[in-house]
Amino acid sequence: MQTSKVQIVENILSANDRIAEENQKALNSLGVTCMNIMASPGAGKTSVILKTIQHLAPKFRIAVIEGDTAPVTIDADKVSELDVPVTQINTAGNCHLDAMMVQKGIQHLDLQGIDLLIIENVGNLVCPASFRLGEHFNVVIASIPEGDDKPYKYPGIYQGIDALILNKSDLLPYIDFNQKYFRMGIQALNPGIPTFLLSCKTGEGFDSWIEWLSDRFAEK
Amino acid sequence: MQTSKVQIVENILSANDRIAEENQKALNSLGVTCMNIMASPGAGKTSVILKTIQHLAPKFRIAVIEGDTAPVTIDADKVSELDVPVTQINTAGNCHLDAMMVQKGIQHLDLQGIDLLIIENVGNLVCPASFRLGEHFNVVIASIPEGDDKPYKYPGIYQGIDALILNKSDLLPYIDFNQKYFRMGIQALNPGIPTFLLSCKTGEGFDSWIEWLSDRFAEK
Repeated sequence: MQTSKVQIVENILSANDRIAEENQKALNSLGVTCMNIMASPGAGKTSVILKTIQHLAPKFRIAVIEGDTAPVTIDADKVSELDVPVTQINTAGNCHLDAMMVQKGIQHLDLQGIDLLIIENVGNLVCPASFRLGEHFNVVIASIPEGDDKPYKYPGIYQGIDALILNKSDLLPYIDFNQKYFRMGIQALNPGIPTFLLSCKTGEGFDSWIEWLSDRFAEK
Repeated sequence: MQTSKVQIVENILSANDRIAEENQKALNSLGVTCMNIMASPGAGKTSVILKTIQHLAPKFRIAVIEGDTAPVTIDADKVSELDVPVTQINTAGNCHLDAMMVQKGIQHLDLQGIDLLIIENVGNLVCPASFRLGEHFNVVIASIPEGDDKPYKYPGIYQGIDALILNKSDLLPYIDFNQKYFRMGIQALNPGIPTFLLSCKTGEGFDSWIEWLSDRFAEK
């Protein structure tokens, strides 16, 4: 009997969802809230994470799982410099994190007393959207230089997420970016989604983002 | 008997390569040279394609296949305005083009008298690298705002390509981008690769890029 490609894909996704549920139960039992961050390569995931940690610590204790397609520790090293527990997952060329990889990441981290676990997914606007990891909420980071048409061209990633960051606002003076057109695209896919215009360079917009993010802990 | 995931993936890739060969034979019989362009979302694939067409036409006749994850025709419309034959492939959420999709694209285009067929792949720095389409050469577009660490973090896409464009040079004054570090990463992955620092906004660097590209026709 030949197994079809579609059936294999369905089996993989349902196995993934089962492990994602296990991950979430494990995190719940430790009182850890988990945020999955997705974005294009170079949208500024690591920069937003670093600045977010600087705002939240020492009031909140944070841990980070870094997803990378290669065994380089550039991002993990930067996070580690902030004295935050971090583990790196090398997907060995794979285009997204899955729940099994995150399960191993969780096992490698000492999460006792941690309030927020941040997962930095692989830089990709397509594949990560299909794989739940056990996170409590999902955030996508868009960036000004990527262009205002991304919601129209990569709609899948913006659906079902809980907040959107629009990063690199400091570049607005130098780039033709129609914020109205961008937000119209986002609203059509995800009406009412909280959206934060930020700059990691100038710090603009971080107060509202940190307020929204902190509220996610209070809710738990 | 259960078919393993690995075996299915191998079967898909080898079927893909067979069709990619057929595509290349079909293009050769028509005297068409084919370039596959890969990049992150928002690196400027469409802008580079539009400006390249403006430089090459009317001396050369060009056709374009646009790969998109959604049925929006934003990019295809822009190309079409330049009076260039264009067909759009909607991958329906899939993260890359494959040879079968391109085969259908080729069948939809009238390629008689066409010198260069440009394929704009889906915006993704991971998956497109694994799928040959029938192209004669591959170009990756990196961009200044993506950051200088991309060759280290997404090495797979830079290997085995024929040229690299570093786009959005007009943003260099506003972004910390270490060109030496970037080029060192590229050279380690792909020694001696022709690299073109461009700006679609100012036109900087297009002359050398167009010269290199035109030579690809002369070679045929």
